[in-house]
Amino acid sequence: MTIRLVKGAYWDSEIKRAQERGLSGYPVYTRKVTTDVSYLACAGRLFAHRDVIRPQFATHNAHSIAAILELAPAGAQYEFQRLHGMGRLLYAQAQRQVRDFPPVRVYAPVGEHKDLLAYLVRRLLENGANTSFVNRFMDEQVPVTEVVRDPITALELANGLAHPRLPPPPQLFPDRRNSLGDDLGDPRVVGALREALAARRARPQAAAPIIDGVMLGGEGAAVTNPADRREQVGSVREATAPEIARAFASAARAQGAWNAAGGAVRAEALERAADLLEARRADFQALLTREAGKTIGDALAEVREAADFCRYYALQAREQFTIPKRLTGPTGERNELSLHGRGVFACVSPWNFPLAIFTGQVTAALAAGNAVVAKPAESTPLVAARCVELLHEAGVPGPALQLTPARGRDFGAVAFAHEALAGVAMTGSTATAGVMHRALAARGGAIVPLIAETGGLNAMLVDSTALPEQVVDDVVSSAFLSAGQRCSALRLLFLQEDIADTVIDMLVGAMDELVIGDPADFATDVGPVITPQAASDLTEHVERMRAEARILKACRLEAPLAHGSFVAPHLVELANAAQLTQEQFGPILHVVRYAAQDLEAVLGSIRATGYGLTLGVQTRLESFWRRIFESTAIGNTYVNRNMIGAVVGVQPFGGSGLSGTGPKAGGPHYLARFAHERTLTVNTTATGGNAALLNLGG
Amino acid sequence: MTIRLVKGAYWDSEIKRAQERGLSGYPVYTRKVTTDVSYLACAGRLFAHRDVIRPQFATHNAHSIAAILELAPAGAQYEFQRLHGMGRLLYAQAQRQVRDFPPVRVYAPVGEHKDLLAYLVRRLLENGANTSFVNRFMDEQVPVTEVVRDPITALELANGLAHPRLPPPPQLFPDRRNSLGDDLGDPRVVGALREALAARRARPQAAAPIIDGVMLGGEGAAVTNPADRREQVGSVREATAPEIARAFASAARAQGAWNAAGGAVRAEALERAADLLEARRADFQALLTREAGKTIGDALAEVREAADFCRYYALQAREQFTIPKRLTGPTGERNELSLHGRGVFACVSPWNFPLAIFTGQVTAALAAGNAVVAKPAESTPLVAARCVELLHEAGVPGPALQLTPARGRDFGAVAFAHEALAGVAMTGSTATAGVMHRALAARGGAIVPLIAETGGLNAMLVDSTALPEQVVDDVVSSAFLSAGQRCSALRLLFLQEDIADTVIDMLVGAMDELVIGDPADFATDVGPVITPQAASDLTEHVERMRAEARILKACRLEAPLAHGSFVAPHLVELANAAQLTQEQFGPILHVVRYAAQDLEAVLGSIRATGYGLTLGVQTRLESFWRRIFESTAIGNTYVNRNMIGAVVGVQPFGGSGLSGTGPKAGGPHYLARFAHERTLTVNTTATGGNAALLNLGG
Repeated sequence: MTIRLVKGAYWDSEIKRAQERGLSGYPVYTRKVTTDVSYLACAGRLFAHRDVIRPQFATHNAHSIAAILELAPAGAQYEFQRLHGMGRLLYAQAQRQVRDFPPVRVYAPVGEHKDLLAYLVRRLLENGANTSFVNRFMDEQVPVTEVVRDPITALELANGLAHPRLPPPPQLFPDRRNSLGDDLGDPRVVGALREALAARRARPQAAAPIIDGVMLGGEGAAVTNPADRREQVGSVREATAPEIARAFASAARAQGAWNAAGGAVRAEALERAADLLEARRADFQALLTREAGKTIGDALAEVREAADFCRYYALQAREQFTIPKRLTGPTGERNELSLHGRGVFACVSPWNFPLAIFTGQVTAALAAGNAVVAKPAESTPLVAARCVELLHEAGVPGPALQLTPARGRDFGAVAFAHEALAGVAMTGSTATAGVMHRALAARGGAIVPLIAETGGLNAMLVDSTALPEQVVDDVVSSAFLSAGQRCSALRLLFLQEDIADTVIDMLVGAMDELVIGDPADFATDVGPVITPQAASDLTEHVERMRAEARILKACRLEAPLAHGSFVAPHLVELANAAQLTQEQFGPILHVVRYAAQDLEAVLGSIRATGYGLTLGVQTRLESFWRRIFESTAIGNTYVNRNMIGAVVGVQPFGGSGLSGTGPKAGGPHYLARFAHERTLTVNTTATGGNAALLNLGG
Repeated sequence: MTIRLVKGAYWDSEIKRAQERGLSGYPVYTRKVTTDVSYLACAGRLFAHRDVIRPQFATHNAHSIAAILELAPAGAQYEFQRLHGMGRLLYAQAQRQVRDFPPVRVYAPVGEHKDLLAYLVRRLLENGANTSFVNRFMDEQVPVTEVVRDPITALELANGLAHPRLPPPPQLFPDRRNSLGDDLGDPRVVGALREALAARRARPQAAAPIIDGVMLGGEGAAVTNPADRREQVGSVREATAPEIARAFASAARAQGAWNAAGGAVRAEALERAADLLEARRADFQALLTREAGKTIGDALAEVREAADFCRYYALQAREQFTIPKRLTGPTGERNELSLHGRGVFACVSPWNFPLAIFTGQVTAALAAGNAVVAKPAESTPLVAARCVELLHEAGVPGPALQLTPARGRDFGAVAFAHEALAGVAMTGSTATAGVMHRALAARGGAIVPLIAETGGLNAMLVDSTALPEQVVDDVVSSAFLSAGQRCSALRLLFLQEDIADTVIDMLVGAMDELVIGDPADFATDVGPVITPQAASDLTEHVERMRAEARILKACRLEAPLAHGSFVAPHLVELANAAQLTQEQFGPILHVVRYAAQDLEAVLGSIRATGYGLTLGVQTRLESFWRRIFESTAIGNTYVNRNMIGAVVGVQPFGGSGLSGTGPKAGGPHYLARFAHERTLTVNTTATGGNAALLNLGG
């Protein structure tokens, strides 16, 4: 067997993945020098099994060459390798100096220009890097002893395996802990999680109004699994109108003390909640897969997002709601600006992120010193009930956070008429936000904030310079993960005609690989949509498209899925973007071809939707994505990656126009909208002179 | 003649006044040592005129005593003075050391405890100050040579008269220029201004729609002086419905380029506008007195506030709208958050601050990258027209700022239905804000911001420890300046019963001193109210109060005021606060007595109004004002000073509940509400490797 040994290949993408997934450490070395030592250790192992292995050492590093010559047992069969155009002088010298130097193979990557570009750029970056042997070798400032330094000595001197300038994933953010994740690529992790989820499957769940910290009793209706409606997940007992009114009245009485407790106390409760969410992530994953049809990976991401919201708003509460901000003014006067809760917020959350968005709305309102009456989505009351219990356990007083599961109309009739209502945070449809806006205007009196996150008709633009493999990866995840039930999901893919056929072919191939099925199964990519009604609406849209447009691909649904509300992923080609008039909240992707000279019209059609939530761009040209960014007014723009999974504090989330009111959730301006600003001006000379001036000196 | 020479008395309050008034420099010395030198110079002058002056030197400073002994010509008649309880040892020693030491008079302030408290505190502060001779004299760490150092030498060593740690008034703020003011206590300033105003009186003024930078022609209606309706100040030609629609359409086309110009370019235009406002302050003062009935001092304050708004929002535009904010995220990705204009804002401004609030709304919207269609108040179109011309001259593109004088209803019918409308900033009545809210909700589509500053039922609470002189000063300015036509003005004065009679007596006396008359007259304290309708509404309220409450004082109006809409200041005693059910926008102050043990009920009655704009507290007890601050949710609280004249950036202005939506004008959160947030996420590894990681080193 031949084994080719190369140094530290693509360790950088593993580092990024570990940060993104919140792993407790890195699965790869984080120092250049550790990869050098590892290289030598592997070389020793290869030689140890030289009876079955013929090693090949690809290196342009003089020390590595010397070390391998030393390590090689007498008579060992092996070879060196160098890249065509690199290391020629090095090996020529080595061959002159060393008798019986092993053979040196010259290799070269083969492919078309477009395939090799990324590889070449990577080599350029590596060789240009300060730590690169090639770079140091050519630098006359670096002494020879330094260039050929033994990596084992260097590592011993370096004091520790971990790179000191590379924070471990939990410490990614300088000011708050990153949420904890699991490596679902690790079989040991998956094995343990599979057992944990199975153990939780049998546990019955109940939701009911939680008033003043106590869950009310009463007969509940069944909550069933969208992947298989025969399975009952739990039961929900909805709140009556008097109970909703009671929740508001009690929250109003509790708000003053919660506000007066200050940002630091509230932050501590939210941080405890984040820790509890992480500790119970298997509980929530189990529930999210069964109540909301989330895949296990999506469910984990949701728990992490909820924990991130808790810690992010805790940080903001500490920064903005603890110590008043001093404002410079004339001498003899103290001027301060402080932020306070407004009163009772109604938080109306959606079923598609029943944990993350629910937690985000509620913890933002709480962090800012408000009391909250939360209404979960009708389809997902169970996860909301568990979340409210957890927040109470973490230290949020029962009366400061009330839960009232209810139909939207029933809740609105009480909430929007209640005198204690001081603000509304909602995520839902644009139409529902409009209804709420009119209800708030009609009630008269004080004008209270309406913070609405609504829909989108999200596009991705791909030009002819984009890397097709990357485009297809990002399109599949943006359009079909979570069964397309994300506000941010890709709906309209604009492909420059020059590469459209190539990309479509690859995309159809990638869709063939999608596993559609029970989200509790680790292999599943696409789970059910939330309700039978949603499924039939989406199917109806597909039928309309079949008549008006062209179905390029329809994935197949297997027979065992008949008891769930599944919709097969579809790829539909439109003649023009205007054919898609409203958001289709499911795994249906529409593709439109465009000519390079028609880009302006494409941008016009995106603006004409009136929405502005997410936008993807795939290109190798900065001028292209800059032009698109500047010609649109979309909330979240993503270049050369997927357009979903906005991370709290990293990609604050929210759109413009029909997509929402702002400010962005998980961003620095969010809490201020939940707050009321106050100034306090104190004449500090009222009781005598001006101590500040008298003590100036001089 | 006897002259008593004391050192640097009350220079600190002059320093504060100069900062507040934006004078170009300080009218007093700013170093302790300069006051010492000045003392010696004055001593020399007094001795030079000893034929007519008998000097008395009040000092506790050894160097001053020695210097005076040296300065005194032979045979000069003079005396020293010391405060009872201070300087006894010093003078005893001096009398022992110096033959024929002049007489030493011991003086003592005489009065009741409450009169002397402030004086005693001041002396304590002075003696405790680091620079105080008394303090240094007692400090064994300070060598004797240092204590008795010659102030002239010290001043020469100090390098400059001005104190280096005391910024000149224009540099009060570390990050922007303070607005320029005039010292209206200086006869030379007043003389020059009187001439300037007289010269401007004859100039005819015209207002008309300004569309795309061009003022339209057409017949105008007369604009008359509220102090004398026989005087025509100018004419206004209101905008037609098609003109208003045209203004919106053109503004919408211009907004993209104005937004793309960036925060720094917009800031420069606003800063030029601030300079122009200051350069033309006499023009605006002349117009404000005649069109809006403002006194000359109020008019100057308005020009300064307008300039402050320009510079404050310019600074915010630079900080928030120029360079996107980098957000920390995983390696291999760049994440940025940037703020952008939303589109076209309608700015609807009031007549009571026709320059300052008009400029504040418009420049905030512009700074954030919006285009603006401005509708001035119906009573004050002229000052708005001059302001818009000035902003265009400063560099705001004509189409980015449109002026459409109109009746509110006519403007609203076009503006609120226009598809380009992206936000509304209004200052006006709570009822008007409600109408706008319903109109915005009814239009459907995107939910746009409504930023409303509305009314108040503002209270001041005075406890028995307050200093009556200060209370009366602050009450008179809070309730009666600007003829009570400020949103912030005091309406409800709560006096603790123990001091109520004393304060009321003094207040009635102070009201007798109010000069009511033509605001163009420098001596006038109280000008007209804005319209005959406003005057008759206020008079009707007084009549109702005459029946339902007790009129404690009604100022007299002189006959020559009959041609203007004047309302005499009134003081009305109510049995309880609930008798005042709505804001009376004029010089009518209501007073309510309360018993100390009923404070909670007083606070309840303040909360029960539903308003929350301004609040005054007068007390010597920090616990008292803290309790009040914490038991209310009012936007601007002022302790031991008046409650009007909020300064941009120092007392950001705006209230809660029925008083407005927030965020506070002239505060750090204001511009974000005019803006739309966007994130941009770029995968920086898409074209190859991760340069950041490769270059980490180690």
